[in-house]
This record gives sequence, structure tokens and C-alpha cells, in this order.
Amino acid sequence: MHNGDFVLDPQLAKDCFEICDLPLSKILLLNDSQYPWFVQVPRINHVSEIVDLNEAQQSQLWYESRILSELLVAQFEPHKLNIAALGNIVSQLHVHHIVRYHHDASWPKPVWGASPSVTYDTGSHTKIIDIMRSELEQKLC
Amino acid sequence: MHNGDFVLDPQLAKDCFEICDLPLSKILLLNDSQYPWFVQVPRINHVSEIVDLNEAQQSQLWYESRILSELLVAQFEPHKLNIAALGNIVSQLHVHHIVRYHHDASWPKPVWGASPSVTYDTGSHTKIIDIMRSELEQKLC
Repeated sequence: MHNGDFVLDPQLAKDCFEICDLPLSKILLLNDSQYPWFVQVPRINHVSEIVDLNEAQQSQLWYESRILSELLVAQFEPHKLNIAALGNIVSQLHVHHIVRYHHDASWPKPVWGASPSVTYDTGSHTKIIDIMRSELEQKLC
Repeated sequence: MHNGDFVLDPQLAKDCFEICDLPLSKILLLNDSQYPWFVQVPRINHVSEIVDLNEAQQSQLWYESRILSELLVAQFEPHKLNIAALGNIVSQLHVHHIVRYHHDASWPKPVWGASPSVTYDTGSHTKIIDIMRSELEQKLC
């Protein structure tokens, strides 16, 4: 499923840090320190809906989502995971995986538009990226 | 995967119309006429996260989501599908499938909290329910 010609949407590239590439998807950390917020982007150009992927790709998408979600549960012990493919603004298919806590900035609202983003201090996101990259590489990268 | 002991969350029961039961999931129409808004609820008690389902159940969840999504594309020709498992308020696992248009009440915002719900006029939801039940029954019920 390698796609060397894949181009990440410029808005996602601007808003996120790259963690690693799984067989299908690129995994990103959104630059908002209010939530551990990960974005899964299938590395296939010109796809905006999940049903635009073929069946094998959809199976792989959800397999990778499951591995990511299990790691998030283990690493962050969320009160709730929010998993969502919206894409109303950035049309390139991407699936949000957001760790939510009862005490977070927007609980119980969905995160989008609820609280202005707070970027990570210089370097403070690297620990999250390193841990997640290491764990994902052991599983899938 | 039949579960005769399943109890639908009272809030979902209050907010939605039942369409049909698929092998794993109950399919509901949310009573908000602003969007064709469907809710997929695995008929398993005491589950709030997708990763709480076993692997076979997760595969079936996404298979049924795919069939539902393909029908929504065919029936409603959305500009975008929004697919999301949030569950911050209603903890019983449920996956939203929302048909979005560029001219809808909240575009491009996510629907939650964006525009007060507008219930269907008496009977005006039955056409949607009948079509979706018929189509789903041909595929899966």
C-alpha cells in the first residue's frame, strides 16, 4: 500500500506534527496542547470519503485505527475517545482520534470550534511524538 | 450476533426513530430534519468505545457502516458524509452518519451544538425511514 507520490494536504501539514507512516496511513499529532489529538490520513491522493477507499483499504484503515486507539487507551487512559471523519473544511480524508477527559477544555462538547487552539510550547510535544512513534513502530510502521 | 437483551440508551430512544436491526447494529434516524442524520448502535450492552468491541464485532461494525454509507451516498448524494463516534454525553457506543450539504444549516461546522434541532413534521420522516429500511433489508437486515 506504499504510495510515494502522496501529498499531505497543506492545512494538515501546517496544523500537525508528523509521527510516522503506517502501511496505509500517515499518523499526525495536531498542534493543540489542550488534548492528545491524533489524525490518521490514508496516504492516497484525491480521496475524501471513507467509502471512496476500496474494501481492502477500508479494512486496513480500521485496523490501523484500532491499533492507534488501543495505544491511546494504554498511554493516556482517556475518559472517552472521540473518533471522527468529518472533512467539511479539509477535504483530504482524515480520521480524528482525540483523547478526551472530563476535565479538558471543552468537555463534554466536541472539540471543533469549542476552545481556541493552544499550541505546544517549543519541544513539549516531542515526548508524545517519541512515545507514539516508538509504540506504533513496534506494532506497524 | 443477535442480542435480544439489548437495551437502547433512553436518550437515543427519545431522540431517534428506529429504522431496522442489522446483524450487529440498530440503525436509527435522528429527529432533526435539518440533516439526514443516521445513528448506528451496536446491540451490545455496556460498550462505550469501539475498541471495547472484539475484533469480529469491529469488523462487522465497519462493514455495516460501509453499507449504510454507500446507501446514503446513493440516496442523498451528499456533498460530504460526517462519520463520528463521540459519546461524551450518551456513553452507549453509537456512530453518527450525517449527510452534509454546502447549503445545510451548519455547514461547514460540525452539526453538534451548531444549530438547534428542528424536529420532523408529523409523518415527514416516514419516507426516509421506509426507503432506508427497504434498502438496508435488501442488503443486510
